[in-house]
Amino acid sequence: MFRSYTCGELRSANINEEVTLAGWIQKSRDKGFMIWVDLRDRYGITQLIFDEERTPKDVFNQAKELGREYVVQIKGTVIERESKNNNIPTGEIEVLVSDIKVLNEADTPPFTIEDQTDGGEDLRMKYRYLDIRRNPVKNKLIFRHQVAMQVRNYLSNEGFIEVETPYLIKSTPEGARDFVVPSRMNVGQFYALPQSPQTFKQLLMVGGMDKYFQIVKCFRDEDLRADRQPEFTQIDCEMAFVEQEDILTIFEGLTRYILKEVKGVELAQFPRMTYADAMRKYGNDKPDIRFGMEFGELNSVAQHKDFNVFNTAELVVGIAVPGGASYTRKEIDKLIDWVKRPQVGAKGMVYVKCNEDGTFKSSVDKFYDQEDLAKWAEATGAKAGDLICVLSGNINETRAQLSALRMELAERLGLRNPEEFAPLWVVDFPLLEWDADTERYHAMHHPFTSPKLEDVELLNSNPGEARANAYDLVLNGNEIGGGSIRIFDQELQSKMFSLLGFTKEEAEAQFGFLMNAFKYGAPPHGGIAFGFDRLVAILGGQETIRDYIAFPKNNAGRDVMIDAPAPIDDDQLKELCLKLDV
Amino acid sequence: MFRSYTCGELRSANINEEVTLAGWIQKSRDKGFMIWVDLRDRYGITQLIFDEERTPKDVFNQAKELGREYVVQIKGTVIERESKNNNIPTGEIEVLVSDIKVLNEADTPPFTIEDQTDGGEDLRMKYRYLDIRRNPVKNKLIFRHQVAMQVRNYLSNEGFIEVETPYLIKSTPEGARDFVVPSRMNVGQFYALPQSPQTFKQLLMVGGMDKYFQIVKCFRDEDLRADRQPEFTQIDCEMAFVEQEDILTIFEGLTRYILKEVKGVELAQFPRMTYADAMRKYGNDKPDIRFGMEFGELNSVAQHKDFNVFNTAELVVGIAVPGGASYTRKEIDKLIDWVKRPQVGAKGMVYVKCNEDGTFKSSVDKFYDQEDLAKWAEATGAKAGDLICVLSGNINETRAQLSALRMELAERLGLRNPEEFAPLWVVDFPLLEWDADTERYHAMHHPFTSPKLEDVELLNSNPGEARANAYDLVLNGNEIGGGSIRIFDQELQSKMFSLLGFTKEEAEAQFGFLMNAFKYGAPPHGGIAFGFDRLVAILGGQETIRDYIAFPKNNAGRDVMIDAPAPIDDDQLKELCLKLDV
Repeated sequence: MFRSYTCGELRSANINEEVTLAGWIQKSRDKGFMIWVDLRDRYGITQLIFDEERTPKDVFNQAKELGREYVVQIKGTVIERESKNNNIPTGEIEVLVSDIKVLNEADTPPFTIEDQTDGGEDLRMKYRYLDIRRNPVKNKLIFRHQVAMQVRNYLSNEGFIEVETPYLIKSTPEGARDFVVPSRMNVGQFYALPQSPQTFKQLLMVGGMDKYFQIVKCFRDEDLRADRQPEFTQIDCEMAFVEQEDILTIFEGLTRYILKEVKGVELAQFPRMTYADAMRKYGNDKPDIRFGMEFGELNSVAQHKDFNVFNTAELVVGIAVPGGASYTRKEIDKLIDWVKRPQVGAKGMVYVKCNEDGTFKSSVDKFYDQEDLAKWAEATGAKAGDLICVLSGNINETRAQLSALRMELAERLGLRNPEEFAPLWVVDFPLLEWDADTERYHAMHHPFTSPKLEDVELLNSNPGEARANAYDLVLNGNEIGGGSIRIFDQELQSKMFSLLGFTKEEAEAQFGFLMNAFKYGAPPHGGIAFGFDRLVAILGGQETIRDYIAFPKNNAGRDVMIDAPAPIDDDQLKELCLKLDV
Repeated sequence: MFRSYTCGELRSANINEEVTLAGWIQKSRDKGFMIWVDLRDRYGITQLIFDEERTPKDVFNQAKELGREYVVQIKGTVIERESKNNNIPTGEIEVLVSDIKVLNEADTPPFTIEDQTDGGEDLRMKYRYLDIRRNPVKNKLIFRHQVAMQVRNYLSNEGFIEVETPYLIKSTPEGARDFVVPSRMNVGQFYALPQSPQTFKQLLMVGGMDKYFQIVKCFRDEDLRADRQPEFTQIDCEMAFVEQEDILTIFEGLTRYILKEVKGVELAQFPRMTYADAMRKYGNDKPDIRFGMEFGELNSVAQHKDFNVFNTAELVVGIAVPGGASYTRKEIDKLIDWVKRPQVGAKGMVYVKCNEDGTFKSSVDKFYDQEDLAKWAEATGAKAGDLICVLSGNINETRAQLSALRMELAERLGLRNPEEFAPLWVVDFPLLEWDADTERYHAMHHPFTSPKLEDVELLNSNPGEARANAYDLVLNGNEIGGGSIRIFDQELQSKMFSLLGFTKEEAEAQFGFLMNAFKYGAPPHGGIAFGFDRLVAILGGQETIRDYIAFPKNNAGRDVMIDAPAPIDDDQLKELCLKLDV
């Protein structure tokens, strides 16, 4: 046995026990006649003491030579600590060392193994195995494990079966780019890595599996934006003989269960909002509802005056910023600069200060009187002391701009408390979205998503207005899950394909395989998938996923620790019958 | 709600209830005035009854048109069944149908959806989604899920953290062939899919994760033998600050726990056997110890007589076949033919019948008298009524041949009861094996496997004799897990590399990355990996893994259901800067 206890275990109840510990040297303080050493492992830190008078001389001398991150095994007696440390669970005791064995020496690490490290992001990624020794990273990985366990417990108890679907599948031309895998045994042919197990989970429903889930890696060869990974983890689920309500119930239950189990947070029933309302009230299909600042549409009260900018705009819309009336002119100018940044793209911003005395002071006083502005305050819910920020232009762009401003201000005002959890179902997504470039409809979710029963007629008359049985679960302004009820009627599916601009032959070529399976008795079914990396990060109170992934890749898709991808041997290429064509 | 109950739920307590069920038509019996229909879902079968007198006419007529595998939803009243069926849990009741809705029609399936199907292997694989509707396949997938859940519960309770390691890693020239994944963003470079997370789990130990596990897909581009898959699942584990004994204890516990939880089988402490003993007693490093038939070495009692075949053999070895004395001459000749098949490769077989009267009759009576043969019986443990089969030749080949014969006879004698579980630790594997072709040593487990402390000196004097801290867990003659304590001392590791014939530069190029990590304080560590597909199959009482995999590939590495791998678009190749070179 290498140890009789871990470094997080000993308490005053263990005083006088002879113990064996093993771990890494966190730090040592050498006072000449006395040396204190912090010994660390995954479970905690225990203070060791080497005393010139009580420790054998050779052991004492060895202790003088210990470097940071040395791996040692010690034997000693648990004693009461003179100056107790209430910050750590082992702070009541220390171990008077009688014997020490250096199991491995260590070079000086490239950054300090402390909660607050001096290592930059790049260095930490290159030496990720050292980064993982640090509590903040280690604890995030342990937290991820705990969330995964709870997800599995809940779904398994609900009768879901975790089925492993294959990783070596077939490339499909739709959607994002696939990673492909050349086959040596089938020369000139390729597997593809799954972007999601969508097809397979629907086949499992055809196969009568009834309730399926899987925590599964998915792969997308996209140009990486910040905080995207080429391989990511999904909680993938599908159910048969269900309607939308069944799915919302189960997965609301899952989310509530996880929050209870891993955060101790009890959530009330999740509010629901239509896509249309979310866009109208928050300019965003994944609104953060931890705070208000709902949009007030001002067309009816701000147009038809002499202010041409508003009169020609498709939408005039504002939000009330709590306490914003006290902003200085300079602060407001900075805010205007902020919305005019290319990343936001507004042309300008109108503001109204709602003074404490009930009067208003706006940047458009020339065009609007106090009575007009009072109506603006009413529409945006602004109170005395608030600042109303108003943007205008075409609907989609203006909403997106005001949404960005809303989030930015909430961040500045400290309204986005990471330990508060505000879930929201967004429902009734549009079935289709019009793509101006290709002049055709695209499926907003995917081509198998079912329209709402009452909107099926719209597919003939006004397809763009048809709503889908599609839903997203939003948590604190992040989409953490999304899914839909699938079409299981062949006629409706054909109509959908033709709306999406597929000829019968194209539909057959791309989706024939699944359609063929559907001929043998497909049950009504639907599902949902959660982005697991993001879910865990948000539960952990963070918005970046990278530290919740043990060995992440950088924005160029590289693993800088193992230096992958990398060139391969000519022989390997030859065996695959491939040539580089750079 | 599509259903108020599943098809496996209703009991006599539900009689008189109005219920809604949904599922597939298993079969229907039309007696003219009365139609019985079996409705099936994942949970069971419920009998529906349509009665000309009690069922609405239109519903009755619809019932006449129902085809096999139609998907329907019915409403009706639970009534007591006249002729109860004790074979199914719902056999006390039936549902008198008042309304029916055909949710989906179905083409006639290409094989019958019955426990005993008329579909051959190929057809079943092509229509795997229909095959999964059959109980034997469905139940195996559910069983797999249950085993996975128990594995996670046990390991998580023992303090192990499941950490997801990356799938897009780097190709290494050692071992089996990697599947590679061309990178579009890093032109001319490739990721590789992991053959196992070996490097990453060792890095997690360097990172202080202490106890790691993962149920994880692994990939090997090998020419497929029967019952091998290019992607397979492993329970991968690693622990720090442990010795071999700690690992055996934990994973013996895991195996015992699973058997208890999923099979209700309580196992005693697992026996242990050295590799040398396993080879000597069973000619095999994964002996099936559900039955005896241990080898008896006969060199001392069979050599130095006039029988030259034995005198010139390196090994003369026999087994006692229970009751084999009653075999006819013809049966014995067939057995001799069997061992002479090229797959076994023996040149011949000597036999001794141990007659009930205590006398012996052998095929070599010319050379051996009764007293000689009595010694053979003693050495092989043969009793009156047994048959002793004796092979001879060089040690390794002869052992392998006799092992094959032992397994074949046990199979014929019904000694390999799939519901009996006989685990065995095989320990003290050789560290190195000599490869006559390349005239160098290979690592029997892998180059990081630690030699036994007491055998370290042998690395200088007689490396082939050094034993490793390596162990396999064998269950019913199958290796279900294997692992080792790793080297964590840099000097010992260098010696190991040089024994394996690596120059310092080669070792650096191939393993430098992990060795570099080891410089920063590597703890003593070791681990094990279980083949999950095989484990589940054996627990399920089967020896083929394919039905325990939802969507397996065939022996050519093809998924015949989705027809993968497949050619990809020229555009895709171009983006990857690759050309086919067929």
